[in-house]
Amino acid sequence: MQLLSVLTLDTMNPAVKKVEYAVRGPIVQRAVELERELSEGIKKPFTEVIKANIGDAHAMGQQPITFFRQVLALCSYPELLNDSTFPEDAKSRARRILQSCGGNSMGSYSASQGIDAVRQDVARYIERRDGGGPCDPDDVYLTTGASDGIVTMLKLLVCGKGATRTGVMISIPQYPLYSAALAELDAVQINYYLNEEKCWSLDISELQRALDEARRHCNPRALCIINPGNPTGQVQSRQCIEDVIRFAAQERLFLMADEVYQDNVYADGCRFHSFKKVLFEMGPEYSDTVELAFFPLHLQIGSLYFLCGFRGGYMEIINMDEEVRAQLSKLVSVRLCPPVPGQALMDLVVNPPQPGEPSHEKFIKERTATISALAEKAKLTEQVLNTVQGISCNPVQGAMYSFPRITIPEKAVKEATDKGQQPDMFYCMKMLEETGICLVPGSGFGQRDGTYHFRMTILPPKDKLTTLLNKVKEFHQKFLQQYS
Amino acid sequence: MQLLSVLTLDTMNPAVKKVEYAVRGPIVQRAVELERELSEGIKKPFTEVIKANIGDAHAMGQQPITFFRQVLALCSYPELLNDSTFPEDAKSRARRILQSCGGNSMGSYSASQGIDAVRQDVARYIERRDGGGPCDPDDVYLTTGASDGIVTMLKLLVCGKGATRTGVMISIPQYPLYSAALAELDAVQINYYLNEEKCWSLDISELQRALDEARRHCNPRALCIINPGNPTGQVQSRQCIEDVIRFAAQERLFLMADEVYQDNVYADGCRFHSFKKVLFEMGPEYSDTVELAFFPLHLQIGSLYFLCGFRGGYMEIINMDEEVRAQLSKLVSVRLCPPVPGQALMDLVVNPPQPGEPSHEKFIKERTATISALAEKAKLTEQVLNTVQGISCNPVQGAMYSFPRITIPEKAVKEATDKGQQPDMFYCMKMLEETGICLVPGSGFGQRDGTYHFRMTILPPKDKLTTLLNKVKEFHQKFLQQYS
Repeated sequence: MQLLSVLTLDTMNPAVKKVEYAVRGPIVQRAVELERELSEGIKKPFTEVIKANIGDAHAMGQQPITFFRQVLALCSYPELLNDSTFPEDAKSRARRILQSCGGNSMGSYSASQGIDAVRQDVARYIERRDGGGPCDPDDVYLTTGASDGIVTMLKLLVCGKGATRTGVMISIPQYPLYSAALAELDAVQINYYLNEEKCWSLDISELQRALDEARRHCNPRALCIINPGNPTGQVQSRQCIEDVIRFAAQERLFLMADEVYQDNVYADGCRFHSFKKVLFEMGPEYSDTVELAFFPLHLQIGSLYFLCGFRGGYMEIINMDEEVRAQLSKLVSVRLCPPVPGQALMDLVVNPPQPGEPSHEKFIKERTATISALAEKAKLTEQVLNTVQGISCNPVQGAMYSFPRITIPEKAVKEATDKGQQPDMFYCMKMLEETGICLVPGSGFGQRDGTYHFRMTILPPKDKLTTLLNKVKEFHQKFLQQYS
Repeated sequence: MQLLSVLTLDTMNPAVKKVEYAVRGPIVQRAVELERELSEGIKKPFTEVIKANIGDAHAMGQQPITFFRQVLALCSYPELLNDSTFPEDAKSRARRILQSCGGNSMGSYSASQGIDAVRQDVARYIERRDGGGPCDPDDVYLTTGASDGIVTMLKLLVCGKGATRTGVMISIPQYPLYSAALAELDAVQINYYLNEEKCWSLDISELQRALDEARRHCNPRALCIINPGNPTGQVQSRQCIEDVIRFAAQERLFLMADEVYQDNVYADGCRFHSFKKVLFEMGPEYSDTVELAFFPLHLQIGSLYFLCGFRGGYMEIINMDEEVRAQLSKLVSVRLCPPVPGQALMDLVVNPPQPGEPSHEKFIKERTATISALAEKAKLTEQVLNTVQGISCNPVQGAMYSFPRITIPEKAVKEATDKGQQPDMFYCMKMLEETGICLVPGSGFGQRDGTYHFRMTILPPKDKLTTLLNKVKEFHQKFLQQYS
């Protein structure tokens, strides 16, 4: 009995088929295979696969903050509260978290919106960050990583068919979670291009162009901004943010600000400005009307504190219609609750050891070391890549990626096209096979036609990063030679 | 400037509006309010709110298994591996998990499908459970709770518009995650009714009736079975499972078996049979062709081991088309990975301390105590409720809920209808206000027209459960009096 399956490529959800996700796509699968082959003793032109495709600092050999790990251990096994080797501030933090969990343990479900005490701490953190603008804990939703929050918000927004389908504006290059979620939700992706020549800045005229064009065939309802940029690493100026807010208000767009890298800003002269702070400084004409959801803290956990595997995150909702908010609360309740260990961790991130507490000094030391190392590696990456003919790299101002532009000779473009591959996928695949370095091709994030890039994390330890950059340099020179 | 919001109830995703989720619905919100009011000193006819609405054993005062908590603490803070107070088997388990995590820490992202070593352990567990039938770790996907896996599978299945829309068969009563996910995905919910008179058993003739009717207006593609039942607590016979598999094969339906409560079977003479085992015993005519996804372990963590807050889970995929499987792998990669602490916990659940290991005796003792207590409470619940005139309760054979049928007098039905409430919502809300007991009305799970039920967990500690049952009895008698 050999029947055709019930579920085949032809009969499955067509929206899912359209989803693409380069950050964990074919190149990463090949990297995993290569690792397996190496471990089986198969000879390769390299001895190690270096995965510079994903923003996971910890897998790159970093150790997470001691204080965080201590509190998580105490929460997991409260018997340790009697252990005198743990510092008192870690214990008191653990006690507070446990008390706010049902049943005095991380094992229970929490409220769907997140543990009350954690949401209160997040709200106080936002108030401190923004110099006192109020934040209501009821506006804070804890999530399973930032992805969860972003997808939930998009889910509320999409509706319509044909020419009235919801359109959502996203930057190109973008983080492909956005394009994947829009494909899955069968919404229209409206591309606005960042200006590579001006260090990936955002021009309002380009927003206007993209919006005007889109209005001919869909119903644009939301504008997504990633600041600091991913994969592009730029940090937006205060003026730019103000202009974007004005644009959203004028054009009646729901604003989604993805600020997960807010603490990762390295470049001299750059400063992070939160959308919320700027919004409130613009006065009630804007602060009372512009609908804003922002997603501030997931990847910060990943990048700076090395605990992205816990899938913590939160979003704050501003000026949302009350009835819609009730629908949001209902929607998050279906998934019961975000993982409680991730919620506990979030509490520590927004409420780290304070001056005078026993763990403060060590915390500051570990945190400072991490940030200075990242700043140094951001500079190193830019410098080395810009010495290579055929590669040009904007300064890495924030986040933890570089997104250099690469020259791909006509002959290589042709060979790729003949193979049905994007030219930069062809380039990255070749680099992986020859050097063991795993990068993500720019086509996975979007780029102007005829330009090519790759995304590389700046996370490997300095000596490994130096080796990596030199190998990239060598590969690129050989590649140009081979195809010119 | 008072503009209409961009996002309003009229302009939001209509599919989201249709989602209902009783388990965390208005009655639970009211219970939380009442708790707050009590804590503010407001006088109520009760001193404590007892939430018997949700299957969270741990929030009910249970303590999770010591071994699990020890390993999780060791994984959180590996410095504890040098602490001599931790047993050696906990340490070796923690070492194995840490080694299989990137960067030797739970802080890293894992592979999107889940950590290799954990998937291997899950596969071996399934093989042991099913007496040796093979399980390939590549068929196992770790998830963020069972909900995540179920929604992902449904997402692959839905397509079509109008009369070709995908239909999915679900039992009534059902766990409302199914109806909520189908509403969100704009698929057709096809109800088949369980037979309350025969202890909530499943009749193939009823499946056939529901399917034939549905074929007139949609394209039925999948059949969901919950065994042991939620909210109904029945355990299906081997014969019934075989009949269901034959039905699915004959009618070309993708089978989704929700077996999250497989270890929670109490009633004498009842035994859990896994769909996979029965499928393989039926021979290659079925085992090579029937497409099956099953979701075996999320709520087991919740119910038996009290760690549902970790949001662990897995699913196994059988006979899935290879191209569709590639789409599934792509889809899970967009969310990066399930929470790593939940994955670590899953590993412990499928691979607990073995005989001869230092933690074995304590583990067995804690586990046995839990199961016997649940069995005792299942019996107690059935017995007490069946002493009440106007309440009839089927035996609680498995899972951790009772779903008794209640008589609601005409006068009360009328009062409820006048208020625009379901009669059993009216009943449960009244019980909450008068006694502080929070139950979920049967209408949230679905029931035959004109019948009324509530779902109650059997999880409270025995003395609290006794109090609760007596209060329910007293309330019901008063209610009947008042409205007769």
